[in-house]
Amino acid sequence: MDFTVPPRVAQLLPEIRRFVEERIQPLEQRISEEWGALAPELEEVRAEVRRRGWWAPFLSRDHGGMGLTLAEFAFISEELGRTPLGHYSFHCQAPDVGNMEILAEFGTEDQKRTWLAPLAAGKIRSCFSMTEPARAGSNPAWMDATARLEGDQWVIDGRKWFTTAADGARLAIVMAVTDPQQPSVYARASQILVPTDTAGFAYRNVRVPASNLLGERGAGFAIAQARLGPGRIHHCMRWIGICQRAFDLMCDRAARRELSPGKPLGLQGTVQGWVAQSRAEIDAARLLVLHAAWRIDQEGPFAARDDISAIKFLVAQTLDRVLDRAIQTHGALGLTDATPLAWWYRHERAARIYDGPDEVHQASLARRLLAAHGLPRKRTSE
Amino acid sequence: MDFTVPPRVAQLLPEIRRFVEERIQPLEQRISEEWGALAPELEEVRAEVRRRGWWAPFLSRDHGGMGLTLAEFAFISEELGRTPLGHYSFHCQAPDVGNMEILAEFGTEDQKRTWLAPLAAGKIRSCFSMTEPARAGSNPAWMDATARLEGDQWVIDGRKWFTTAADGARLAIVMAVTDPQQPSVYARASQILVPTDTAGFAYRNVRVPASNLLGERGAGFAIAQARLGPGRIHHCMRWIGICQRAFDLMCDRAARRELSPGKPLGLQGTVQGWVAQSRAEIDAARLLVLHAAWRIDQEGPFAARDDISAIKFLVAQTLDRVLDRAIQTHGALGLTDATPLAWWYRHERAARIYDGPDEVHQASLARRLLAAHGLPRKRTSE
Amino acid sequence: MDFTVPPRVAQLLPEIRRFVEERIQPLEQRISEEWGALAPELEEVRAEVRRRGWWAPFLSRDHGGMGLTLAEFAFISEELGRTPLGHYSFHCQAPDVGNMEILAEFGTEDQKRTWLAPLAAGKIRSCFSMTEPARAGSNPAWMDATARLEGDQWVIDGRKWFTTAADGARLAIVMAVTDPQQPSVYARASQILVPTDTAGFAYRNVRVPASNLLGERGAGFAIAQARLGPGRIHHCMRWIGICQRAFDLMCDRAARRELSPGKPLGLQGTVQGWVAQSRAEIDAARLLVLHAAWRIDQEGPFAARDDISAIKFLVAQTLDRVLDRAIQTHGALGLTDATPLAWWYRHERAARIYDGPDEVHQASLARRLLAAHGLPRKRTSE
Amino acid sequence: MDFTVPPRVAQLLPEIRRFVEERIQPLEQRISEEWGALAPELEEVRAEVRRRGWWAPFLSRDHGGMGLTLAEFAFISEELGRTPLGHYSFHCQAPDVGNMEILAEFGTEDQKRTWLAPLAAGKIRSCFSMTEPARAGSNPAWMDATARLEGDQWVIDGRKWFTTAADGARLAIVMAVTDPQQPSVYARASQILVPTDTAGFAYRNVRVPASNLLGERGAGFAIAQARLGPGRIHHCMRWIGICQRAFDLMCDRAARRELSPGKPLGLQGTVQGWVAQSRAEIDAARLLVLHAAWRIDQEGPFAARDDISAIKFLVAQTLDRVLDRAIQTHGALGLTDATPLAWWYRHERAARIYDGPDEVHQASLARRLLAAHGLPRKRTSE
Repeated sequence: MDFTVPPRVAQLLPEIRRFVEERIQPLEQRISEEWGALAPELEEVRAEVRRRGWWAPFLSRDHGGMGLTLAEFAFISEELGRTPLGHYSFHCQAPDVGNMEILAEFGTEDQKRTWLAPLAAGKIRSCFSMTEPARAGSNPAWMDATARLEGDQWVIDGRKWFTTAADGARLAIVMAVTDPQQPSVYARASQILVPTDTAGFAYRNVRVPASNLLGERGAGFAIAQARLGPGRIHHCMRWIGICQRAFDLMCDRAARRELSPGKPLGLQGTVQGWVAQSRAEIDAARLLVLHAAWRIDQEGPFAARDDISAIKFLVAQTLDRVLDRAIQTHGALGLTDATPLAWWYRHERAARIYDGPDEVHQASLARRLLAAHGLPRKRTSE
Repeated sequence: MDFTVPPRVAQLLPEIRRFVEERIQPLEQRISEEWGALAPELEEVRAEVRRRGWWAPFLSRDHGGMGLTLAEFAFISEELGRTPLGHYSFHCQAPDVGNMEILAEFGTEDQKRTWLAPLAAGKIRSCFSMTEPARAGSNPAWMDATARLEGDQWVIDGRKWFTTAADGARLAIVMAVTDPQQPSVYARASQILVPTDTAGFAYRNVRVPASNLLGERGAGFAIAQARLGPGRIHHCMRWIGICQRAFDLMCDRAARRELSPGKPLGLQGTVQGWVAQSRAEIDAARLLVLHAAWRIDQEGPFAARDDISAIKFLVAQTLDRVLDRAIQTHGALGLTDATPLAWWYRHERAARIYDGPDEVHQASLARRLLAAHGLPRKRTSE
Repeated sequence: MDFTVPPRVAQLLPEIRRFVEERIQPLEQRISEEWGALAPELEEVRAEVRRRGWWAPFLSRDHGGMGLTLAEFAFISEELGRTPLGHYSFHCQAPDVGNMEILAEFGTEDQKRTWLAPLAAGKIRSCFSMTEPARAGSNPAWMDATARLEGDQWVIDGRKWFTTAADGARLAIVMAVTDPQQPSVYARASQILVPTDTAGFAYRNVRVPASNLLGERGAGFAIAQARLGPGRIHHCMRWIGICQRAFDLMCDRAARRELSPGKPLGLQGTVQGWVAQSRAEIDAARLLVLHAAWRIDQEGPFAARDDISAIKFLVAQTLDRVLDRAIQTHGALGLTDATPLAWWYRHERAARIYDGPDEVHQASLARRLLAAHGLPRKRTSE
Repeated sequence: MDFTVPPRVAQLLPEIRRFVEERIQPLEQRISEEWGALAPELEEVRAEVRRRGWWAPFLSRDHGGMGLTLAEFAFISEELGRTPLGHYSFHCQAPDVGNMEILAEFGTEDQKRTWLAPLAAGKIRSCFSMTEPARAGSNPAWMDATARLEGDQWVIDGRKWFTTAADGARLAIVMAVTDPQQPSVYARASQILVPTDTAGFAYRNVRVPASNLLGERGAGFAIAQARLGPGRIHHCMRWIGICQRAFDLMCDRAARRELSPGKPLGLQGTVQGWVAQSRAEIDAARLLVLHAAWRIDQEGPFAARDDISAIKFLVAQTLDRVLDRAIQTHGALGLTDATPLAWWYRHERAARIYDGPDEVHQASLARRLLAAHGLPRKRTSE
């Protein structure tokens, strides 16, 4: 048992911390503005990241990344999570990160050349299109969108929403039912690559070449699982970074804001309770994430699926509480864009919802744990 | 970074788990009875523990223990914590464990021969006498008991209470003010060894030889600190064991108890939420404890004092919640002695109080953390 | 809308408060002793209560009580709840209070003469025997005990447990299945009066006269409902009293206990937070109870069943939190019998379990509320 | 004790509910748009409200309102709170409502004619300018802005922020230090009426006529108190309305959204727990608000100040939890503008901050309560 920071990243961390503080955090206050307004500065930052050899830390060296293990990347991701612009700056933002992973793993050589190469180089953006308005996101097997093969084309029909980052994406990876006659609901859907400039995008009678199938036909769920498991830990690593920054902001404010002359906020027992509780909760959640990353590296995502479920909701809860305390410590200022706290408060409420609501992860984790104690495996209304 | 179980204990753990389940847990249901009734069976268990070479795992080999590091012992302690009788069976129960540690570190050769030897051998028991009724336990510098040197004897006067395990103890280590004129309140008290059969025990005009001073005169607080820091992690390691057992009991009950024919409790979403939440919270708290133990081993207790503060309250809170959910899952049965849950519920409420209430640890941790952000160090009314 | 205390009790409340403080609270510290040791003093207190005309405040004047409405009694009950001995002293303790109510409502003249009269006079005690070890208390329709009519006798077989106050009771009201062939599970059981000195008590082949049937055959559940609804509000009113006393004890301690010279505990922000939060929570829970009592008086228990469900769990949760904060404020002293806090902590954990676990009340309340929004009424595994 | 709805409002409530649902709620989805876009429809709604005689329900009939008591208005306000546009539609929105109250109570005839009349008629809007960036809002006695009398003009200097609704306001009521030499900090500030088109507005060398002083010189705090006490209950009454609507939205969603065919969300135990818990918490918080309103009507705001403190934080906490559960029940949809939940989530986080953070109210309530138990009144660092 050894809690030392992995040597490959240990020396990088202070450099990256400084870079994030000096080059990225100054842009934060403009995050509520139009994205376009920030783009030029961000592209400069990204160019500098690439020059320093920090580009796409999670991606294999073959595709132009740093080729870190998940446990190594966890430490970098924590630093990047300290600002809402960090992951984009280092080119490891969702959903591109997950899409690159599945293209690398399941894509044909041609698909890799056409899509992975420009994605990895940061020349285009992508999205992942699974959720449908009439169907619960927590039950991915229940899906209306269909794709049928007509000649050498997939013809896709359906309605999707909550497609993160769809605006500006050049590529959509779309889940659709291709084999409705399959007995198992988990073998009915496929993933298909759809350029967003295809006629009918929005998914009425969209036609793409048959060769745009990603992986095997009917393997849509298997690939989605391969994507979502590690995807969840990517979110968790980023949330730990948010927690760390929120904690620092809370401490700064508590140490400096005076309630009356010479009486800083941080002398109050209630605030001290928030500080101590947050420190302990962040540290515990962080170790749980590092342990899950280490286990995925050692034994693969399937062996670590209980660990992944656990961090998904525990870190989301921790994030919720730490942000709340940091905002309360700032008072009305915490609701302005003077800090990134309000932005996170608005945008990261989704942490407890996306990739499956926390309650769904809790139920599936519990059923696996209880099965080991003899609970019948049959499906429940939950 | 490596989360593998230390090799020296990895193979022992399943053996100890089996021993605990087969030899110690059967005695649990009688734990509410008179202690004397259980004594013969327990002494047999202890003899067997000694034969197997598991005696006093935390104690150095010189004094007859296993000589484990703290991080190694953490894994053993977790197994022992699964039953209220585990630590006593392996001779690492509070307060003896702490008393042996300070005798080993600060005792003279004579004191070691007289007191440490029989304590380490399990022939006598001891207690630690610090808390006073009129003074807040959370402010140990505020103390009324005094000891003055008359000739070659210490004469001790004062009133103590909440002296854990005083009944049956042969030795009391007593904190008393010996040097009231010292400018620092932290240099005024000493620790003195008092056999409990000394005339006047209860601390009115108790006389013991001058040589019963433990360590330096005025070093009472320094020694108490040396004792309490590791003492806290000992509690935490045990609480993790309690959590693990409570979790298993909860799962067993949820998997097997039917609400109506064929509908076990564990199919309910609320219970599944408790199971999943408990699993994640226990795992996170456990990693925090292991990390603190590892850090104490690497850098010593002073460097790890923030970690020790954090686990003190975070693990106590986790214990509180896990026990509560396990009891609720059992319904009325959870309030009987059919499981150890009710016993722990009654006895471990103290976890959030002893060795300093959680709020005191939170305040002191927060003040140290906030000082790093610029909060003035001056003392507050808190 | 008028929140004035009902005139019939307004003037009594300070008198009863004083009586409770002067005559009953002094006996509290002996509550952990054998019940017998306290009996003589308690019987004196009860005699005095009767002399003052305060006997059995909830019971109709015909049966020797004060004949208060539920909303009026709520105020008295809150005063009595301030000590664990209060309700017994005023002869309105569970389970006798519920048993007297159903005997008064459903008993024959003969049953009233034989059992209600001595119960109302406080000459005997009674118990209610429904829960069975192999069956979830939360599903009262699932019951194994049977009673069959042989000649002019009921022959009862089965196993019961968690029969509150069974020790010392002269009468047990026993639920057993008498009509297993009825299509509705709710029409299969009956209530039968069983003297505890009947041969076979423990329910193997117990024989009692056929005339011991209480109410109609097959009406066991209907009567149990009639008993449990108001029974729940009786508990809630008492819990409010416990909360009030715990709050006063917490404030006394916080105001007087010094952490260092001149620095009482109550100056700390954390403790102030507990005090304020407890005050607000108790007041809100209290109004919810008073409103439910008022509604039962106005419209009957069926109309108020949502209100009764809501107070059952909300007041139990409030009690849990307030007791916890009061104990924490007392430190180790709070775990001794110096105050009634520890006794309540041990005994009132059951508040969230008996009369149906809180989760069962939440589920049934939610299903009724959701049905109004269109949720299908069909039964669920939950 | 009588919980009946006051007769003057009982018959109005269903009419107002219908009006809110039919006329105001349809505008909700556009609430994130520019205010101007909504203005025409809103002005039509306000005209209709006036025609129906529902204008400014809290304002005395003399000034064109309905002249309701606070307890009566509480019921109306709950209906209006069901939509973010309700209070504005009925002309009882903060901060105008508070400003009208103090102008009515403290204004000269001239001030009433000039400012109260058009405010009451809804022709202009107003703001209240107290908070300063460098000073904690929770300590209103610590203020930098000054006003000095030069000839017949007040000359105001200072910096203010978080002036709610400053955009579009014609009148600002400004707090500034006028009498710095006064021994009591509470007698140093005054309130001054400042038209927002005054040169220098933003408060550098702003000059207004001496007659713009509101009330007595040095009475700034006294007037602020008179304004803030009832102001808090106005917020609480509105929050109850938000809770009620969020609850209904949650139930609708739970009853109708299917997780799989025929399995609505509302069958899940976790969701049922949220529904039941929310119902109980809202009902309890609502009674606490009604009680406080009734008490203010009966005994005035000073007598009810503990009640006002308690509802300020208890209702804000309830709002927080109920909104959170309603959003979680909606999943990703809850974060869109399809319902008002997301809007409230973003805007009502401030509920726990404005008019003093909850922690400040808790501390001041606790100090008053503890003083009754003997805690010294002296000021603390808290």
